[in-house]
Amino acid sequence: MRTIFWKDCLWLIDQTKLPEKEELIPCRRVDELVEAIKRLAIRGAPALEAAGAYGVALASFEREFSGLEEIRQYLVEKAKLIASARPTAVNLSVGVEKVLKRALEGNSIEEVRSIALREAERVAEEDIERNKKIGGNGAKLLEDGDVVLTYCNTGRLATVDWGTALGVIRSAVEEGKKIRVFACETRPLNQGSRLTCYELMKDRIDVTLITDSAVGIVIKKGFVNKVIVGADRIVRDGFFNKIGTYTVAITAKHHRIPFYVAAPKSTFDLSRTSEDVVIEERGAEELIYCGDKLLAPKDVKVYNPAFDFTPLELVSAIITEEGVIYPPFNF
Amino acid sequence: MRTIFWKDCLWLIDQTKLPEKEELIPCRRVDELVEAIKRLAIRGAPALEAAGAYGVALASFEREFSGLEEIRQYLVEKAKLIASARPTAVNLSVGVEKVLKRALEGNSIEEVRSIALREAERVAEEDIERNKKIGGNGAKLLEDGDVVLTYCNTGRLATVDWGTALGVIRSAVEEGKKIRVFACETRPLNQGSRLTCYELMKDRIDVTLITDSAVGIVIKKGFVNKVIVGADRIVRDGFFNKIGTYTVAITAKHHRIPFYVAAPKSTFDLSRTSEDVVIEERGAEELIYCGDKLLAPKDVKVYNPAFDFTPLELVSAIITEEGVIYPPFNF
Repeated sequence: MRTIFWKDCLWLIDQTKLPEKEELIPCRRVDELVEAIKRLAIRGAPALEAAGAYGVALASFEREFSGLEEIRQYLVEKAKLIASARPTAVNLSVGVEKVLKRALEGNSIEEVRSIALREAERVAEEDIERNKKIGGNGAKLLEDGDVVLTYCNTGRLATVDWGTALGVIRSAVEEGKKIRVFACETRPLNQGSRLTCYELMKDRIDVTLITDSAVGIVIKKGFVNKVIVGADRIVRDGFFNKIGTYTVAITAKHHRIPFYVAAPKSTFDLSRTSEDVVIEERGAEELIYCGDKLLAPKDVKVYNPAFDFTPLELVSAIITEEGVIYPPFNF
Repeated sequence: MRTIFWKDCLWLIDQTKLPEKEELIPCRRVDELVEAIKRLAIRGAPALEAAGAYGVALASFEREFSGLEEIRQYLVEKAKLIASARPTAVNLSVGVEKVLKRALEGNSIEEVRSIALREAERVAEEDIERNKKIGGNGAKLLEDGDVVLTYCNTGRLATVDWGTALGVIRSAVEEGKKIRVFACETRPLNQGSRLTCYELMKDRIDVTLITDSAVGIVIKKGFVNKVIVGADRIVRDGFFNKIGTYTVAITAKHHRIPFYVAAPKSTFDLSRTSEDVVIEERGAEELIYCGDKLLAPKDVKVYNPAFDFTPLELVSAIITEEGVIYPPFNF
């Protein structure tokens, strides 16, 4: 099943419910989609690209319009709202733009709608094709018997299907290589334990869960020999990804094991450097509570950035749908 | 209030209940103490030394004996049980041995009991004195305006009172220096968020909570300029401490900020190297559940070591009650 798809309206797997249950939620209005994005019911840079794309289609269907100008203006307005639902991932606005640009070329309300939906479906299809290409390119870097450490979730749940960094592992396994995985839990929202373990176990790929802080010991003990992560935004001097990626990269470098990044070209934003990107800060409650359990004093001060930046000097290779890029990274 | 004390029987603050409530639990039998140690109701190397010491006293009082040989044999037997409640911290057996040796010199059941209790009280008193000395010695390494990153809990709750690494911060603050603290949550049992934040807020010391994985970003951004941690066992080539300490040490080294260890001399076990120490592995449920909340598939494979090893080359100084030891560490 795809993470996001259109059937009469837009449907998403509510990832906040996993691994307890795989629940589909319908979005019939842009507001519902934006809320779902904000509360991370859907997350992962490539999945957000599809969400952005489908969001524009959703805007075209969510109400009646009296004329062409009205639907065009409405789409432009809603496109901004969707694109700004989360500030760090570039893919959300890439998806929005892809569909908006074409949809505005429609010459009737009906044409705008059908173009928007067709283009959104194309974005979703292309994501899957692209991920399979990333997987195929990256699989060449994995050998039979490798044990790969991964961070956060970069699997089918982070994309429309297949995954980026996990897609590389999937492709290697599909080629017949025996690959084992160590998954970091990825605090504070535990995408690693909740989503990555869930996906890999479903696919019968051998996975061991560790705390984020156990990265040092598992690398030192030689339990893992390679690291693969995804990326939310690749800029000229490095890349942004889930908070903690940077610490993993430093640890991999210290032990001289390869540290690979797998991401589609749409993640590249080479007009910018790390200085130009705002890192989203999320609420204190993500660290203070876990479900109903109180993990810290209620009024404690918290610094909770959603992402961190890893400079290129810690990266061994970047795997994209077009091939593998090695240092020096002459983008 | 002390973390552990004797009043008719042995009393402990149940640290698994914090920060929700500060609840005292009585131990009237050695079995209850061992269970409390195993489930981490009391933890922290120096507090475990006192627990070991009081445990022997408890053994002498928990039942009637028909003669001197019987109580002596019983103490020897229970001493082994207490000392093996947790395998990695050397302090537990140090505390047990200190009291056992003296108690066995008693020439009547009553004398064995009174020596055991007196010696246990002395171990507890000495811990506090020692921590104040560690604090005073370490405070010289902290300057007015420093922002210190710390890991796990090394405060009064990890000791009888005052603390080791947090004791250094307390002593510096007591001397009038303005010190701010970043506390890592310390997964999977969140001693950082539950205990360190709780203690520091009670003492009105400025503390900010972060995920363990945010260590990289806060050091890189210059939010912290020094790291202080405790130690569970210091051996010839480095030290064992809470899982994650090693990753923090690598990150501090990468950014060339000081990484200090604060621990009493009883933590030193220089007849051993890292090769000789068994790292305790704890249950999978610590990562799979948080309270009632399911964080991972129920049957996921988990690697959950309680400690990791940090080699001496990553350590800037070791602070003890006898002074500060700098590299090269000629123990």
